[in-house]
Amino acid sequence: MVNYELTINNLLESAVKANEDQEIIYNNKSISYKEFYKNVNNFAKNLLKIGVKKEDRIAILDYDTINYLYCYYSIPMIGATMHMVNIRYPPEILYYTIENSDDRYIIVNSAFMPIIAKYKDMFSFIKGFIIYSENRDEPQEDYGLDNVYYTHDMFGDTDYEIERPAENSMATLFYTSGTTGLPKGVYYSHRQLVLHALASVSALTDEPITLRKTDTMMPLVPMFHVHAWGMPYFSIMKGMKYVLPGKYDWQDILKTMEKENVTISAMVPSILYMLLSEKNGPEILGKLKLRATIGGAALNSGLADKAEALGLSLVTGYGMSETGPILTLATYNNYVAKMDDKTKSIYKRKTGIPIPMVNLRVVKDGHDVKRDDREIGEIIVRAPWLTEGYIKDPEKTEKLWRNGWLHTGDLATIDTYNYIKIVDRENDAVKSGGEFIPSMVLEDLLSTVNGVDEVAVVARKDEKWGERPVAFIKGNAKEEDIRKKMEQYVDTGRIAKFWLPDEYKYIENFEKTGTGKIDKKVLRERLGD
Amino acid sequence: MVNYELTINNLLESAVKANEDQEIIYNNKSISYKEFYKNVNNFAKNLLKIGVKKEDRIAILDYDTINYLYCYYSIPMIGATMHMVNIRYPPEILYYTIENSDDRYIIVNSAFMPIIAKYKDMFSFIKGFIIYSENRDEPQEDYGLDNVYYTHDMFGDTDYEIERPAENSMATLFYTSGTTGLPKGVYYSHRQLVLHALASVSALTDEPITLRKTDTMMPLVPMFHVHAWGMPYFSIMKGMKYVLPGKYDWQDILKTMEKENVTISAMVPSILYMLLSEKNGPEILGKLKLRATIGGAALNSGLADKAEALGLSLVTGYGMSETGPILTLATYNNYVAKMDDKTKSIYKRKTGIPIPMVNLRVVKDGHDVKRDDREIGEIIVRAPWLTEGYIKDPEKTEKLWRNGWLHTGDLATIDTYNYIKIVDRENDAVKSGGEFIPSMVLEDLLSTVNGVDEVAVVARKDEKWGERPVAFIKGNAKEEDIRKKMEQYVDTGRIAKFWLPDEYKYIENFEKTGTGKIDKKVLRERLGD
Repeated sequence: MVNYELTINNLLESAVKANEDQEIIYNNKSISYKEFYKNVNNFAKNLLKIGVKKEDRIAILDYDTINYLYCYYSIPMIGATMHMVNIRYPPEILYYTIENSDDRYIIVNSAFMPIIAKYKDMFSFIKGFIIYSENRDEPQEDYGLDNVYYTHDMFGDTDYEIERPAENSMATLFYTSGTTGLPKGVYYSHRQLVLHALASVSALTDEPITLRKTDTMMPLVPMFHVHAWGMPYFSIMKGMKYVLPGKYDWQDILKTMEKENVTISAMVPSILYMLLSEKNGPEILGKLKLRATIGGAALNSGLADKAEALGLSLVTGYGMSETGPILTLATYNNYVAKMDDKTKSIYKRKTGIPIPMVNLRVVKDGHDVKRDDREIGEIIVRAPWLTEGYIKDPEKTEKLWRNGWLHTGDLATIDTYNYIKIVDRENDAVKSGGEFIPSMVLEDLLSTVNGVDEVAVVARKDEKWGERPVAFIKGNAKEEDIRKKMEQYVDTGRIAKFWLPDEYKYIENFEKTGTGKIDKKVLRERLGD
Repeated sequence: MVNYELTINNLLESAVKANEDQEIIYNNKSISYKEFYKNVNNFAKNLLKIGVKKEDRIAILDYDTINYLYCYYSIPMIGATMHMVNIRYPPEILYYTIENSDDRYIIVNSAFMPIIAKYKDMFSFIKGFIIYSENRDEPQEDYGLDNVYYTHDMFGDTDYEIERPAENSMATLFYTSGTTGLPKGVYYSHRQLVLHALASVSALTDEPITLRKTDTMMPLVPMFHVHAWGMPYFSIMKGMKYVLPGKYDWQDILKTMEKENVTISAMVPSILYMLLSEKNGPEILGKLKLRATIGGAALNSGLADKAEALGLSLVTGYGMSETGPILTLATYNNYVAKMDDKTKSIYKRKTGIPIPMVNLRVVKDGHDVKRDDREIGEIIVRAPWLTEGYIKDPEKTEKLWRNGWLHTGDLATIDTYNYIKIVDRENDAVKSGGEFIPSMVLEDLLSTVNGVDEVAVVARKDEKWGERPVAFIKGNAKEEDIRKKMEQYVDTGRIAKFWLPDEYKYIENFEKTGTGKIDKKVLRERLGD
């Protein structure tokens, strides 16, 4: 018997064999699964040729291109690890993640070369820079780097042979931020990715999302973001037509959706908001009767109502960077399926019900909360695809995993029909457009401004972005000076522009919690949360 | 981090937690998943209490009762192995399978006690007989066995604790027959069962079967038969309402289907034939718009047309005892989904397309056949849930697994849209009502009759049973004498009554193949195959 392991290699091979002619679309060009497979293999072998070794980690900085999709398969298939670099991080933090994860190669869209070049003297640990250029005929700028390769030279035949990785070897890693400054690296094995794909599909097929093999998928979750929620793996495993959005351009995306007749997607609420804000957005999405999983942040009723009135079907999904990500989907169970449309609408905007193989509890003081939609507890989970922990951070890993349960830090209730609803987060992170903005980093930097005595950054609800940061200041620093200082931190690459607080509010005295910390709940309430 | 393994324990726990109030129906009684879980646990602990040890094998002889469903979970959950005994085997062979698999306990429906009692002197290796009685108040006959327990005493609280099995430990085993005399034992681990469940659900959700969490499932594949095609595991994993048919009684089944509003099922063609032959069958199944996977034998067009005219949705599935069983389903891919209804009907009666993670090839002389619907090759497969081999039979195991591929012995073509169609079997087994009838056993016994010089048993197509055996005889033995002798073999338990050939045909001379064997193809052609 062959030990047929749960690897990305086996996922792809079986899917290609069963769906040779199925299409992958990028930039108005179609390639078949069969061609895709050939290219993935050749790219993988050429990575070996330039010196990539098993267990090497390879950083990738790219938009949602075909190059990224090749990386999703080629890198794990040779036993290396794909580090999906968050391109929205401020450069300093972006560099930190590449250094912290011990990457040995960087695959980079030429659009991001200026960031890489900025740190070129600090990249002595990088053995090769592999540049992907949308237009291969365009002359490449010389950044004075050694060991530069171009992806378009890496699809030829070679003699190198792929040695299959073990299913428990590390396939992917990426960083996630919370309230604190430095993001934490989480990682996943081949086995975990395959199981996440199988379980996701097993649940996404329920009403009202009803994902099927015959659907055309265009994922609108950035590929650096928690495996684009698993779509690059499970869509191909399922044999679906797959459309890559490239660099996000709303008009371009809408045109492609219409042309390729996209039927299914997934995205954070902000992206839905932006698509529906385009002149022709409502018309096109309505015509397509798009079905989409919405996650990363709570879906507000105004946006959901608007989308559903146009004929879209939305379902909330929930998960974290640490959980693959998918844990729950607000699909219908027997009870909800029998309710009227209005009640169903309420249910599909809840956090949802666990997908197969997810053992999820809502726990308070060690016991499961009552299913009364009122008692609040923390969501803790077990599933066969949760990250083992944080890279080089045993302390935070221990805090994440306690008594064999992953502690999400999310507070929720559970109702009589078993639907979970998140009511708050235990930590104070601000989540804007699906991305965490670390409030503690902002507070640290704000406190360096002369005349700022005490500071707290909290989230305010925002129709477009889900949440936006607002800073509360105690002290006599001028707002103008604060803003100027913060802009400087953006310029030096210390923080990202979209992290800047929307507003500065002055306060006489902060209310404190029992342990002497600023009570952020009070501040959020003041913002009308 | 907890190592959250792919075990039946974790499958059940996560499903119960997410669907506590979902129902399981047996004999007009409903229990919730929560109660089911409690009973499974108590039954498991009481098995430990009476002495069952990890890795013990436990035979079970039962109809499709709630008791069987408890066994599906309780036995693997304590690390023991459930041996699903084929209750349609002739008693001699049935005894052989229990002995060959080294069973230590037998759980037996009181209806099958006469068979067990028949061999009581030969059951010295059995440590306990656990009797399940539909009516616990009925006085139990005394068969003079020692170590008798009753299942109805085994649901009380005990102090025994369940030690979780490893995912690779053996969870189930059962026997499968082919052309030869003694059936071969195949076996599955927890991990394999969980993966089979996940992949099955991932594919069964496609059109036109569209299995969903909100469906009500009544499996009509006997539970001793290849895990009832996985339904007892994947339906509960998916959180579906589950209705057990009990001992098959067509009127009773139809009544229950109607009462519980069954929407989905799976069965061999013979069962569909029988349900539709009942007076009220067409009316009830039509009203339910039943969707069903049909497998175990080819679905003939007459039956399929009749069912579809009534509003049923049928899809062919394919697999073997050695493969979990599911390998392919004839659900729609992009190409077929766009065809007209008539063409779709042809496609959904093909053998189908592989489900996720199944790497399936149709191979002739070492190369993949052309996708032209004409070139014939053998189906060979890889998947993460195929049996490792046959119990105590390294020779046949080696024949099954060659070059890392499981060889099905089924001959098929593949068409331009990637649909496989089985055209023949490499071996000469007769498959009647989903069960193999071993032609070689019949030939052996027939050849013992005076005046039978040469004999060959081949399959004839049959509208009701799929196939029925016909014996070709060379010699001057009288048909009456042959029949009498064969009836005697039935009486002594050597063969099953339904194995008896439907017809005896006399022949002057057998045509032989190049290797001197009787050419059965010629005989089948003569029967108008």
